[in-house]
Amino acid sequence: MNTLPIITLDEIQACLSEDDILSAVKEALISHGRGDVNSPPPGILQLDNPAVGECHIKYGHQKGADTFVVKIASGFRDNGKLGLSPNSGMMLVLSAQTGAPVCVLDDKGWLTDIRTAAAGALAAQAGAPDKVSAVGIIGTGEQARLQADWTCRLLGLKSIVVYGRNPEQVANYVDDMTAQGYGVSTASEVKDLLKRCNLVITTTPSPKALVLNEDVQPGTHIVAMGTDNPGKQELGAALFAQAAVIMVDDLAQCVHHGDLGHAVRGCLVSEDRAISLGLVLAGEQQGRLNADDITIADLTGIAAEDIAVASLVWERKEVS
Amino acid sequence: MNTLPIITLDEIQACLSEDDILSAVKEALISHGRGDVNSPPPGILQLDNPAVGECHIKYGHQKGADTFVVKIASGFRDNGKLGLSPNSGMMLVLSAQTGAPVCVLDDKGWLTDIRTAAAGALAAQAGAPDKVSAVGIIGTGEQARLQADWTCRLLGLKSIVVYGRNPEQVANYVDDMTAQGYGVSTASEVKDLLKRCNLVITTTPSPKALVLNEDVQPGTHIVAMGTDNPGKQELGAALFAQAAVIMVDDLAQCVHHGDLGHAVRGCLVSEDRAISLGLVLAGEQQGRLNADDITIADLTGIAAEDIAVASLVWERKEVS
Repeated sequence: MNTLPIITLDEIQACLSEDDILSAVKEALISHGRGDVNSPPPGILQLDNPAVGECHIKYGHQKGADTFVVKIASGFRDNGKLGLSPNSGMMLVLSAQTGAPVCVLDDKGWLTDIRTAAAGALAAQAGAPDKVSAVGIIGTGEQARLQADWTCRLLGLKSIVVYGRNPEQVANYVDDMTAQGYGVSTASEVKDLLKRCNLVITTTPSPKALVLNEDVQPGTHIVAMGTDNPGKQELGAALFAQAAVIMVDDLAQCVHHGDLGHAVRGCLVSEDRAISLGLVLAGEQQGRLNADDITIADLTGIAAEDIAVASLVWERKEVS
Repeated sequence: MNTLPIITLDEIQACLSEDDILSAVKEALISHGRGDVNSPPPGILQLDNPAVGECHIKYGHQKGADTFVVKIASGFRDNGKLGLSPNSGMMLVLSAQTGAPVCVLDDKGWLTDIRTAAAGALAAQAGAPDKVSAVGIIGTGEQARLQADWTCRLLGLKSIVVYGRNPEQVANYVDDMTAQGYGVSTASEVKDLLKRCNLVITTTPSPKALVLNEDVQPGTHIVAMGTDNPGKQELGAALFAQAAVIMVDDLAQCVHHGDLGHAVRGCLVSEDRAISLGLVLAGEQQGRLNADDITIADLTGIAAEDIAVASLVWERKEVS
């Protein structure tokens, strides 16, 4: 009986280029938007003893594909005290012919980080105004780095404005992103950042809204990717009522545990106002109608993205 | 960066005795009954292209434990045509301190099979009448073998009566179980089996009820373990109204996708009639009140069982 193959992080990173990941995630968002991915609601396990953390399980099948995928992603906020990343995980590829596991992707959570960055960059592109001077980044963690980098490269930008609560973490962020070749300046408050940026990405686990309706300039596009459970919120609910376009990676997830959920539960916006990011990327819907529009892309991360990147790794390892 | 350890099926089988499995599953059922296991509803992925199958994801955390577990179990009914078992899967053990994966149990679905057999035997014991002449088994698949074997060994029985629709599969079953040292006779219909047996285990994927109220003798205990989605049914709904005791491994699961669900949705029984199998095993509730009672144990398989066996394997491999 064969032992299950494990594909290591080094092998995974060696077989995927950034272009591969961007095109796989773009196709995944489009497929999902068109209803071609069978992905039940994600499983969420909350832990609080001995440590506080969450484990998210996303899984599903691109209709007709030879394989299906189960993705496990953990987030344990106190891992920093142990010198570890808060995020970890793995992906499993299984046969859609027999149900049997075909390989384990021991990606340490990297594929989740990187597909999230790719989805954020695509969501930024989908609603970005014609002229973006600088990308505004709220938050200073791993996704604050990845989202800035992937979005700047996709849109050909060089300048970042960052806001974070913790001065030391802001300083580290500035050092790191400067070392990557970006021009980075800091904002003393979110309001200040919103005055200076018309493309803003929020990447925090904030329990209350940071980006308020009254502070957002006309013509701004906001990508909200930090909120992934109903106890988190980055955008003020009233902002959704104001937005000309609301894009979502998945409507049910965004209503259940994204920023949009706060606005829907508060009856400030009806969920049928939201359009599919995938259909915007497919050119079937418009992410921005007018230069002065405020537009929002609310992202919760979808199984289709995990399926796409995990399947791509497996296809490449299988033939090599 | 360490590579994730994989524990093979041979290693898993070598480190667990039947007594280990029985006591781990018993403790799991008790813990679950007492509310000491954090296990959200299982994820279920239905596939139909290119093949018809299901993948069930069960996961959770025994409160306070160092690890948590995610179990993947697939069932693809047409695997027989490929010479494969319908069932396959794997289990993952993750750290409850950091969220990181600690090992993969490449058990090919064996742990799920065996914990299901152990739970069935314990459920049989929990409501069995004082005198059992023969165990009645409905179905001729893998669980029909395992449930008979584990139940007979736990209760010190030697005789099996089997009913199956397919004569060739019935003949194979009789051969296999005879070779294991059991006295096996066949029943020509379910009604006949119910006349001859007062302990009956149903192990089929039947889409409609096989065990009907009017055919069940007083004093019979029935363990229903085949039904695991709302489209399957082994016990007639009216039988639940007739039963003196209804035990469940998990109330929400049994109402959602067990046999009990048909009776509850048909308003033949209220779900508060059901008691916890775990609390019966703990001695806190009674599985049988009188010799003439008809009693039922409805099993859907719970994450607590997976957590218990997977954690036990990991503990043993970790110290060895």
